Amino acid sequence: MIILLGGSGYVGQAFQRLLTGLDVPFHNVARKELDYSETHRLADFLAESGASFVINAAGYTGKPNVDACELHKAACLFGNAVLPGRLREACERTGTPWGHISSGCIFSGERPGGGGFREEDEPNFSFRTNHCSFYSGTKALGEEVLLGAQDCFVWRLRIPFSEVESPRNYLTKVMRYARLLEAANSLSQLDEFVRACFECWQKRLPFGTYNVTNPGHVTTHEVVDLIRASGVCTKEFEFFRDEDEFMRVAAKTPRSNCLLDTTKLQDAGIRMTEVHDAIAQSLRNWVRE
Amino acid sequence: MIILLGGSGYVGQAFQRLLTGLDVPFHNVARKELDYSETHRLADFLAESGASFVINAAGYTGKPNVDACELHKAACLFGNAVLPGRLREACERTGTPWGHISSGCIFSGERPGGGGFREEDEPNFSFRTNHCSFYSGTKALGEEVLLGAQDCFVWRLRIPFSEVESPRNYLTKVMRYARLLEAANSLSQLDEFVRACFECWQKRLPFGTYNVTNPGHVTTHEVVDLIRASGVCTKEFEFFRDEDEFMRVAAKTPRSNCLLDTTKLQDAGIRMTEVHDAIAQSLRNWVRE
Repeated sequence: MIILLGGSGYVGQAFQRLLTGLDVPFHNVARKELDYSETHRLADFLAESGASFVINAAGYTGKPNVDACELHKAACLFGNAVLPGRLREACERTGTPWGHISSGCIFSGERPGGGGFREEDEPNFSFRTNHCSFYSGTKALGEEVLLGAQDCFVWRLRIPFSEVESPRNYLTKVMRYARLLEAANSLSQLDEFVRACFECWQKRLPFGTYNVTNPGHVTTHEVVDLIRASGVCTKEFEFFRDEDEFMRVAAKTPRSNCLLDTTKLQDAGIRMTEVHDAIAQSLRNWVRE
Repeated sequence: MIILLGGSGYVGQAFQRLLTGLDVPFHNVARKELDYSETHRLADFLAESGASFVINAAGYTGKPNVDACELHKAACLFGNAVLPGRLREACERTGTPWGHISSGCIFSGERPGGGGFREEDEPNFSFRTNHCSFYSGTKALGEEVLLGAQDCFVWRLRIPFSEVESPRNYLTKVMRYARLLEAANSLSQLDEFVRACFECWQKRLPFGTYNVTNPGHVTTHEVVDLIRASGVCTKEFEFFRDEDEFMRVAAKTPRSNCLLDTTKLQDAGIRMTEVHDAIAQSLRNWVRE
């Protein structure tokens, strides 16, 4: 039996769809049913339910966007840094393997020397580098809390998108923002992301950290071109002159824009669609809200 | 009615002694009685009890010393950074003024230009500066979480000592360590510390951050000389050659050694004994365990 935490969130719902589609028995644990943030409660539950694997899709993101985390620091710290530590303790105490949804947003830019950041690189968009959003700071602390965790996958998601229009979908965001910031990014197609994560467990890959993004990277202008070419939205997209103007006009806290290296996941035999192709595909199958 | 949280700890017990001695009615809330880490529970309790002031002496220190925090990161983050944020929310929701015990251990060394760090200086021993213990990192984050808090005192304690022998008493530690690290530090005489904190409230000082340490600073060698001169312990004290040897042999994580400026508290009319005198006085009245 797979135990899913945070199953009502954007990523959690995608896990529910995946597991349902695969006919894999799972239990989506609502916090009302069990306060799994209490280590002993979760440990008891894992022991009693005979859980084979736990997926932690719970975390604090901030709505409508990451700026909201600057106003809810304690909740953000709790959801992204304390909760993973408590889950780790419950899973280690009961010998339950598990996976945690982390974020690639703990990096900024390219790897020194070019290309994407690798799993073993130190986060450079974190409290430790004193250049980050509060959200990214807490996600990086969450990874610190999980250093050396037993039987634990740390899956790094980045800017999820899919074919279903939603305020959480990056493609929807791009279409709805009044103005855009030009940047190069790695992205995760949501359904491919959850499939790839689950395959780590199904294929019994070595535990540890994986960048789970679509291979390649894409600029905001390229995304706009793909949207316009698809016919889903053909408006004239407007851009900020530069990051300074974006920060002055639209944002409270800096954004992570970064490239991640996906070699580790690919070498392990887990395939995700090249990012431009994945975007084009989502736009071809676009489902309006 | 004063509400005391964390009253069973080393600092909390001193607050209990102080308030009892002053005949000030207070309620030491045990976590078993009320899970005050749940914002809504604490808010309800504050509203029902008609609390006039809350003292938060709860936090995560690490036993026997700060190294233990490196092993219990989630608990340390929760106690020192999440909990203050939740208390802030409960106090602001109910309009209850309060005080939080922070730590001067978010600084290292002297203020650039010499002298002690002032209340408005940025912590330089924190996650943000990427040079800190996990403990100090979480205490600095706790202060970040409290930035702009309404009707809130942030009282910075440093290395408490008193006349009562105890594993938490700095003078006891100095006498029991096999070897010592030479450093210059600001210290807080425990009973004077809690009295000074409470006077901030009694005298209705402006809310905000206060360094609550004894004026002046002291080196480890000076402390040893005072101990030997007092006759409390006349052994030959041994010292590490330098911080490198200390880190290699005795410590998992770097220590904060620092000077704090106490002008703000003194200018507000709150007196504490000069640090050498305070140490000599504690040693004169020494009470063995």
